[in-house]
Amino acid sequence: MKSMYKITLQLQRCARDITNMSQQAVNGISHRGRVLTLDSMNPNVKRVEYAVRGPIVQRAVQIEKELKEGVKKPFTEVIKANIGDAHAMGQKPITFFRQVLALCSYPALLEDSKFPEDVKKRAQRILEACGGHSIGAYSTSQGIECIRQDVARYIEKRDGGIPSNPDNIYLSTGASDAIVTILKLLVCGEGRDRTGVMISIPQYPLYSAALADLGAVQINYYLDEDNCWSLNIAELRRALNAAREHCNPRVLCIINPGNPTGQVQSRQCIEDVIRFAKEEHLFLMADEVYQDNVYAEGCQFHSFKKVLFEMGPEYSNTVEMASFHSTSKCYMGECGFRGGYMEVINLDPEVKAQLIKLVSVRLCPPVPGQALLDLVVNPPQPDEPSYATFMTERTAVLSTLAEKARLTEQIFNTVPGITCNPVQGAMYTFPCITLPQKAIDKAKELGLVPDMFYCMRLLEEDGICLVPGSGFGQREGTYHFRMTILPPTDKLKVVLQKIREFHLRFTQEFS
Amino acid sequence: MKSMYKITLQLQRCARDITNMSQQAVNGISHRGRVLTLDSMNPNVKRVEYAVRGPIVQRAVQIEKELKEGVKKPFTEVIKANIGDAHAMGQKPITFFRQVLALCSYPALLEDSKFPEDVKKRAQRILEACGGHSIGAYSTSQGIECIRQDVARYIEKRDGGIPSNPDNIYLSTGASDAIVTILKLLVCGEGRDRTGVMISIPQYPLYSAALADLGAVQINYYLDEDNCWSLNIAELRRALNAAREHCNPRVLCIINPGNPTGQVQSRQCIEDVIRFAKEEHLFLMADEVYQDNVYAEGCQFHSFKKVLFEMGPEYSNTVEMASFHSTSKCYMGECGFRGGYMEVINLDPEVKAQLIKLVSVRLCPPVPGQALLDLVVNPPQPDEPSYATFMTERTAVLSTLAEKARLTEQIFNTVPGITCNPVQGAMYTFPCITLPQKAIDKAKELGLVPDMFYCMRLLEEDGICLVPGSGFGQREGTYHFRMTILPPTDKLKVVLQKIREFHLRFTQEFS
Repeated sequence: MKSMYKITLQLQRCARDITNMSQQAVNGISHRGRVLTLDSMNPNVKRVEYAVRGPIVQRAVQIEKELKEGVKKPFTEVIKANIGDAHAMGQKPITFFRQVLALCSYPALLEDSKFPEDVKKRAQRILEACGGHSIGAYSTSQGIECIRQDVARYIEKRDGGIPSNPDNIYLSTGASDAIVTILKLLVCGEGRDRTGVMISIPQYPLYSAALADLGAVQINYYLDEDNCWSLNIAELRRALNAAREHCNPRVLCIINPGNPTGQVQSRQCIEDVIRFAKEEHLFLMADEVYQDNVYAEGCQFHSFKKVLFEMGPEYSNTVEMASFHSTSKCYMGECGFRGGYMEVINLDPEVKAQLIKLVSVRLCPPVPGQALLDLVVNPPQPDEPSYATFMTERTAVLSTLAEKARLTEQIFNTVPGITCNPVQGAMYTFPCITLPQKAIDKAKELGLVPDMFYCMRLLEEDGICLVPGSGFGQREGTYHFRMTILPPTDKLKVVLQKIREFHLRFTQEFS
Repeated sequence: MKSMYKITLQLQRCARDITNMSQQAVNGISHRGRVLTLDSMNPNVKRVEYAVRGPIVQRAVQIEKELKEGVKKPFTEVIKANIGDAHAMGQKPITFFRQVLALCSYPALLEDSKFPEDVKKRAQRILEACGGHSIGAYSTSQGIECIRQDVARYIEKRDGGIPSNPDNIYLSTGASDAIVTILKLLVCGEGRDRTGVMISIPQYPLYSAALADLGAVQINYYLDEDNCWSLNIAELRRALNAAREHCNPRVLCIINPGNPTGQVQSRQCIEDVIRFAKEEHLFLMADEVYQDNVYAEGCQFHSFKKVLFEMGPEYSNTVEMASFHSTSKCYMGECGFRGGYMEVINLDPEVKAQLIKLVSVRLCPPVPGQALLDLVVNPPQPDEPSYATFMTERTAVLSTLAEKARLTEQIFNTVPGITCNPVQGAMYTFPCITLPQKAIDKAKELGLVPDMFYCMRLLEEDGICLVPGSGFGQREGTYHFRMTILPPTDKLKVVLQKIREFHLRFTQEFS
């Protein structure tokens, strides 16, 4: 009871903070004549929100500190299931990747007999492509040429031989960097001419954050939760037509496999989306960073580029597209290296020149991340000494993820008041939670959105950190949370069990 | 004669390209109904320019390819003295840094007896601060906490004990990233209320590029070339007053030691600048990435923060400031890792919350770069096994740079028509070149700015790549180029000699 009281206090404090901050954002309180204050700062930045690292995560970090300081809690550790951070959840790096990176960092190890020949060969090749044979030199702004060639070959292989041109490949600081860069090129105009960008709801909040920052108009199209979060062209058209009245829609963003919703788009759906983009004269942005994370029976990843080219020259010569990939997800989960690339299709040559100019201002993407990307797109081959270990490690990670995807769906669907679509791909589940009216009222009383109230309570009571669905967007009156399936299987089972019990307790308390 | 003809053709082509591009930028030619064209793209991006990697560098890369393909040239290699890229110019990485990074990449090496204990200790410490003990995990968006603590201790030591708070330290993707982030917070308003940002002329083009991108008003203040590029408060005041008529000046950017001008500011000058910033209610941005690159007798680096605090609470409690540092310059020159940090002083707590939110959208700076930064701010200590080698390597780099700084000034000043200020610090020289009227006319005829014409000719005839002064800004009617002092001493002597001969030839030809 006492701890419950503490929790309520904590929640009220947190609610106050949130209200204050937004209040001040509106009123703009001036601060002893500072140059830079909430009211004198860039208003677009104020509009930026990024739930994946929002207030709940900050509270989780606080709680971890309190635990370290010996504060008694109903739990001994905080489990952060809020972000797709595989290594933080105990996944081990791929040996081959890290061996090559070690040799690139300290080339004296090229003489060390304990490293396999293919490891040395790759390190040597990367170093020879670096200025002064050092990963400490700047690369060209578009990225190291031989790495862009490897990326192009990887794409050709992935897409059954459809050609890829290294000049269309731009290496980046994670996928986020490239996504923001393309949006920056596209967003312009004022008032009704302002660029509108279509994003799915639920969405990955990088998109809403970037659009707020750029002052673009966000156009929401809703994924169909009743049909496993599938994308419906009629809904795209509805959203587009509504938006045409107040902005200039020019961009359509797709995340496949889906984040936070984990669906994998059918080939047919992708074809329809491409046809829609051509008809409606939209620039396509295909976020495909989870392309290796496909688990469900009968599901398969189809790249937008492959489908585009299979639709024939009428499409492959006209539809403008950028596709994004990253070293942070899939089986390697190397988030910290911030490696990634984008491939642009049918981009105006003059705009390409502008793009190269724009990326050159930041000099180059981190070279260790470029090196890592080279290994991801060009892994050990069957005749190479590192192949066996590489395949064992890769397969282990992906099959465990597939198992955890099934497990998550199964257990959640046994909980009355939680309905969970199959996790077909990516590394998240986004279940729908039914909240009793009294809980919704209580949340409003505390000045919290209901699913934030739910997640905060879960965090305070069980030390599990999830992200409220409101951080990704959801249909009015529905409530969700995003949870990663990354914790080790045993821990994941505990987490799912704890959420189950919490949900029943919570529903009980407020009914 | 024939080769001279080819060069002129080449120059005319290049000039045409430049004119076309700018023409099209103005007219905005539409392209077969593309969504994204020069005329339909973000106009701010079109305004961005970045000379350090501009047309001349692109031509240099072309020439390198031509040489590879066996095309005959009056030279056998292109020497790129256009960018501060130490490793590309043959400088070797610091052994200690790279050993620790190798162990962080592949922790199995922690068991390897060939690595000194202090190397292992540092790697262990960094890994323990990473999620899942892997540099492949995301860090907090502000940067790994124990690294921010090390940065704070480093600053305290550097500034004679003036306290530094890790909460005021933000790790970044090189210094550029942090500089753009702070500018993004500051720039807002429309028309006459639009934020104005004061930058030195000559400047490092990151600033003009970022201001164009953000649509801020660039306010130029000129450095005093006749007084070794010193900063003159009267000139600051002139620039500010002129700007007040058409914008809202809120920011003053300083680069010390100077890029491209290599001057080192006196303590007195820094005090005057701080007083000016307080009087005029300006946010101070101190770009101090060359703080270890000071060569000239009697010159010393004074950090803006130290001077600010020595001026007493009246200043240290009120003046808002951000100071920037990087792993790319100084003695380590690790550009490829994109490591850096900023320290903010007197930043509004509510703005700090906004800053953390903003950086969280990009998740985190590259973790290998954060690890490297930790080693830079916390190098081997006298009682540690790696100390001797570290000091030998560090001293060798810095003393060679000092020698090359002297050499450069000396040789240039023997050339009639070239006047060169002492290279007191940083890694560049920005000599003034006198161009004959006929050369200026010829350049105009080709549609090139005169110093671009000069540098293009030098590149085509001698394979030396410099950046024209016009890329950094210079007083009307004066001409300069920026050259790095980074080539190895022998090569630098050749470069200086070749420039000497070229300049005499060029002057001859056009007089």
